[in-house]
Amino acid sequence: MHLNAVSRPGRWLFTLLLILPLLAQAADALPSWNASASRDAIVAFVEAVTDEKGKDYVPVAERIAVFDNDGTLWSEQPMYFQVLFALAEVKRLAPQHPEWKTQQPFKAVLEDDQKTLAASGMQGLMQIVTATHTGISTDTFSQNARRWLASSKHPRSQKPYTEMVFQPMLELLAYLRANGFKTYIVSGGEVAFMRTFAEEVYGIPPEQVIGTTFATRFQDQDGTLSIQRLAQLTHNDDGPGKPESIEAYIGRRPILAFGNSDGDLQMLQWTMAGEGRRLAGLVHHTDAQREWAYDRQSQVGRLDKALDQARDKGWVIVDMAKAWKQVYPFDQDASQH
Amino acid sequence: MHLNAVSRPGRWLFTLLLILPLLAQAADALPSWNASASRDAIVAFVEAVTDEKGKDYVPVAERIAVFDNDGTLWSEQPMYFQVLFALAEVKRLAPQHPEWKTQQPFKAVLEDDQKTLAASGMQGLMQIVTATHTGISTDTFSQNARRWLASSKHPRSQKPYTEMVFQPMLELLAYLRANGFKTYIVSGGEVAFMRTFAEEVYGIPPEQVIGTTFATRFQDQDGTLSIQRLAQLTHNDDGPGKPESIEAYIGRRPILAFGNSDGDLQMLQWTMAGEGRRLAGLVHHTDAQREWAYDRQSQVGRLDKALDQARDKGWVIVDMAKAWKQVYPFDQDASQH
Repeated sequence: MHLNAVSRPGRWLFTLLLILPLLAQAADALPSWNASASRDAIVAFVEAVTDEKGKDYVPVAERIAVFDNDGTLWSEQPMYFQVLFALAEVKRLAPQHPEWKTQQPFKAVLEDDQKTLAASGMQGLMQIVTATHTGISTDTFSQNARRWLASSKHPRSQKPYTEMVFQPMLELLAYLRANGFKTYIVSGGEVAFMRTFAEEVYGIPPEQVIGTTFATRFQDQDGTLSIQRLAQLTHNDDGPGKPESIEAYIGRRPILAFGNSDGDLQMLQWTMAGEGRRLAGLVHHTDAQREWAYDRQSQVGRLDKALDQARDKGWVIVDMAKAWKQVYPFDQDASQH
Repeated sequence: MHLNAVSRPGRWLFTLLLILPLLAQAADALPSWNASASRDAIVAFVEAVTDEKGKDYVPVAERIAVFDNDGTLWSEQPMYFQVLFALAEVKRLAPQHPEWKTQQPFKAVLEDDQKTLAASGMQGLMQIVTATHTGISTDTFSQNARRWLASSKHPRSQKPYTEMVFQPMLELLAYLRANGFKTYIVSGGEVAFMRTFAEEVYGIPPEQVIGTTFATRFQDQDGTLSIQRLAQLTHNDDGPGKPESIEAYIGRRPILAFGNSDGDLQMLQWTMAGEGRRLAGLVHHTDAQREWAYDRQSQVGRLDKALDQARDKGWVIVDMAKAWKQVYPFDQDASQH
């Protein structure tokens, strides 16, 4: 049957019959996504780049997908979880640092003095992160991070932080990998912290986790080898730092990128500026009930310029409240909402 | 039949019958390797870590193998091929740099004045590498490297540099990958140079190539995006820099490492210091006829301390003249030697 021979309503039906199996397949692969423009755009993209006979076909080796972490794969409120880890570490390590009792911003952390802490700003935060993330070996740091992740609960949900991940994004990662994609994290978070849970939680191995880095030094102490973490920031993996680290670590331009804030803008731009079919996506936090609602005015995860560009260029904007049937793995399923 | 019931010669025969298929399989996978202690050690290691029921079993995700490049996967004489590229680039770029006619070490390069060039030492070399490797975008640099690789011949063999690779090592890489290993390059060479040929020549994708790095800067020039290479060395991937970069890029300790010089010593030590079964190997350049013979006294690829430690600790030392049936892919096969 030649397509031109089909009447207009018949042609529509014909097309529907052709794509129905694909839609059913997508519903299988992405069960926590509602039927939505976002889901359709993702599925259409994956179908196109994996269709060997199509004009948009991309060989497996070039199917690189990059994801921001905070606010894209897991929540980032009331503040980045890694900052909460650093604050908890200050308290745990305080007995070894009597000077912190009088020294800001540490004093503020120990006294739960939010106002002074907030006033210490980015510089204060970096002091706290440096004090808790460096001056130790990579092994010791990983143990510290694992201990905190295993023993701490999110203040609102009272669930472990590693359960504050987005079920629809876990499904998206798995769907992409099932279609030959290599999935990466490219995040402003410090890389070693993320590597302690990314494999178990996201199925992303350490070598596919890219982030902010401190300098290290190989140490041979009478035959005992270690890698020491130094108090020197070597890369801030935010904004333009993201395409830079993608080039440094992957050496190949992604064909899919997902973020949620202005810090992801350059990564999305870089991804879209390549040749051939590409997809850029933003998670838009519109769900005050099940997660949080914030964008242009937010301190953490501000989404302003990137939202304008996404709208302007027709990037995928995932309206969390509408597009996601379920937010967290621990949520009751959609039928009970 | 219980093993204890077998007589001593019978037991020997029994064992031989058990391992014969493995040896045959190894001969299939590593046809350019002579039967040798090196080959046996490699095969025994791979069999052990892939045997799900054995005590040395290593899950696929942890099968990380790292290889030095210069002198380990391809030749490095009469000097590192990347240095030859940099020298050729000085000549190609000279018309745009009239000042080089009078400025050392560039003047020496343009006049083929080996003596002055050698006297300029490491500092002179870094000037040449920086002048030819930075101040341009990553795309332009890759084009330059590809052009040179496609058009230049090795002074002795008159073959393209990308054919000066070791056939037995190509087989080893493929054998490891067939057994679930992820193969990496960890080299003192500049990373972007190696990435232009590693995938095609070694089957190693860009994201698995680690090396010396320059700083980069994401640039948005009226909407035209690029990554610019800056004249600032950010990592020297040699000696202790190798375990440091392994931790930074892979975040997981390799279980197999191969090198050929003292610059690989810390990478081999770091690999061997982990728990469980591991393999460290050295390519020993003993073959003046088919390749080169050098070790303790060599300017390029000096192998001295690492050779002592390898002997002391029983690491695999590949005696090129004895262990390799064939050196380069373009060599006639062994039967004609």
